[in-house]
Amino acid sequence: MEIIRRPHLMQQTALDLKRDRLKIAFVPTMGALHAGHLSLVRRANQMGQVTVVSIFVNPTQFGPSEDFEQYPRDLGRDVDQLKELDVDYVFAPDPADMFPGGSGTYLYNETMSNRFCGKSRPGHFRGVLTVVAKLFNLVRPDFAVFGQKDFQQAALIKRMVLDLNFLTEIVLCPTVRESDGLALSSRNIFLKPEERQAALVLHRALRGAEAMVADGEDDTEKLAEAMRETISGGPLVRLDYAEVADAATLEPLERLDRRAVALVAAGVGVTRLIDNTLLEPPEEKQ
Amino acid sequence: MEIIRRPHLMQQTALDLKRDRLKIAFVPTMGALHAGHLSLVRRANQMGQVTVVSIFVNPTQFGPSEDFEQYPRDLGRDVDQLKELDVDYVFAPDPADMFPGGSGTYLYNETMSNRFCGKSRPGHFRGVLTVVAKLFNLVRPDFAVFGQKDFQQAALIKRMVLDLNFLTEIVLCPTVRESDGLALSSRNIFLKPEERQAALVLHRALRGAEAMVADGEDDTEKLAEAMRETISGGPLVRLDYAEVADAATLEPLERLDRRAVALVAAGVGVTRLIDNTLLEPPEEKQ
Repeated sequence: MEIIRRPHLMQQTALDLKRDRLKIAFVPTMGALHAGHLSLVRRANQMGQVTVVSIFVNPTQFGPSEDFEQYPRDLGRDVDQLKELDVDYVFAPDPADMFPGGSGTYLYNETMSNRFCGKSRPGHFRGVLTVVAKLFNLVRPDFAVFGQKDFQQAALIKRMVLDLNFLTEIVLCPTVRESDGLALSSRNIFLKPEERQAALVLHRALRGAEAMVADGEDDTEKLAEAMRETISGGPLVRLDYAEVADAATLEPLERLDRRAVALVAAGVGVTRLIDNTLLEPPEEKQ
Repeated sequence: MEIIRRPHLMQQTALDLKRDRLKIAFVPTMGALHAGHLSLVRRANQMGQVTVVSIFVNPTQFGPSEDFEQYPRDLGRDVDQLKELDVDYVFAPDPADMFPGGSGTYLYNETMSNRFCGKSRPGHFRGVLTVVAKLFNLVRPDFAVFGQKDFQQAALIKRMVLDLNFLTEIVLCPTVRESDGLALSSRNIFLKPEERQAALVLHRALRGAEAMVADGEDDTEKLAEAMRETISGGPLVRLDYAEVADAATLEPLERLDRRAVALVAAGVGVTRLIDNTLLEPPEEKQ
């Protein structure tokens, strides 16, 4: 496993691999790796002949009042974990090398960013899309593997690939959860024990929506309202949003007449958590 | 010379060429080719082993009140002209194939777009950057050749390549002019004879600024003011802007203490014309 720090060396390495006609599978991360990330790496190992994992806490996707400085960083531990897997390259650039001239050119998608996390975190997805475009140009992956937990992010990146004719196939992996249902997140380490317990309300709200759909409910506003009640009813939790949307476009949906996604976000202590679940439309009624 | 209409065929062709380790030189155009475009193609022939010319009137870079429908189109004549040169591929896609899902993801650069043509044509450079990023991903050029006449466009594209780590080297070619100094433009065919004569005032304004610099003038506002007076004094012409800016960043410049560019734009009849010239700082005074 080779660790590459300089963007131009990463790009040259990727070009050499492509000249040798090797398929590159890429897992972009912000480090602080947990079992969720590792599941993405295992999936990448299956898809490509060469696996590249990037570790980069991207400053441009954090708002001025957000936790960029506090975001957990432990490159040594990350590298140790990746050594246990079949990773060929770890790309861990410095922000100064990724954004040498400050910021000039950005990517954005207004339509898909004006809701959910994009509404609560202005500029966040602009930062995400811009750095992912850069990383794709540097790593030149055939496959890029993302977690379903960041559902809106993955939807935006899929759309970017389509809109801008990138050659990368986006692969989505299921959210990895603790045994009690809490979605793994690098930010979970910030949760105090009572907050950790309170945070389960997000998963409970999603399970509730799934149960309502299993019982035939197809009114998305009723599903959203039930999730909001569940989350708002919990202690230590500040609801941000709980919505149901078209899983492909993230557009609002009145009836559950196509594949949908239930999306929730809440503040728990100083930590902002998100989660989601896919909802299949109920069977046609007789 | 092969004509390719489908984006995915262009991309596959480019990938095959790159696998054969051939250098691709690319000239993106909106067709209606004139001697200026042909000079770009000749330069591309010198730079690469394979020359690709795209012909695509990009709807997303025209404003709602602009001349998208009227923009001159003559693919047959364009192809005939390119056959005379050493062009390997003409990429001429349909808008419906380039933007199949409407528009979602855009590129923009607020800082470099809020002046000059970007101010007069809101959304224009967003459309340009987005389509150029798409074309770069489809054609995968080692070199892309642009004309100096569209100076702000070229500066924005250079910055995009730097910011997003594209692998394409941007090559700029001098503006080609009629014998009386009028910069060649596909839009010149719209000029009535008296407008054609009136349009010379743009070139005259730039020559005036060059003469002032040769005489030691380094106050950029005086240069700009002189250009504005020249253009406003001509008949049939509506001044849009006349400015002097840093040639690398397009930032405002008080003194001509580095390489600068004088940029002018004006409406002549129904036609909007632009032109520019580079200004070197005067020799150090003894």
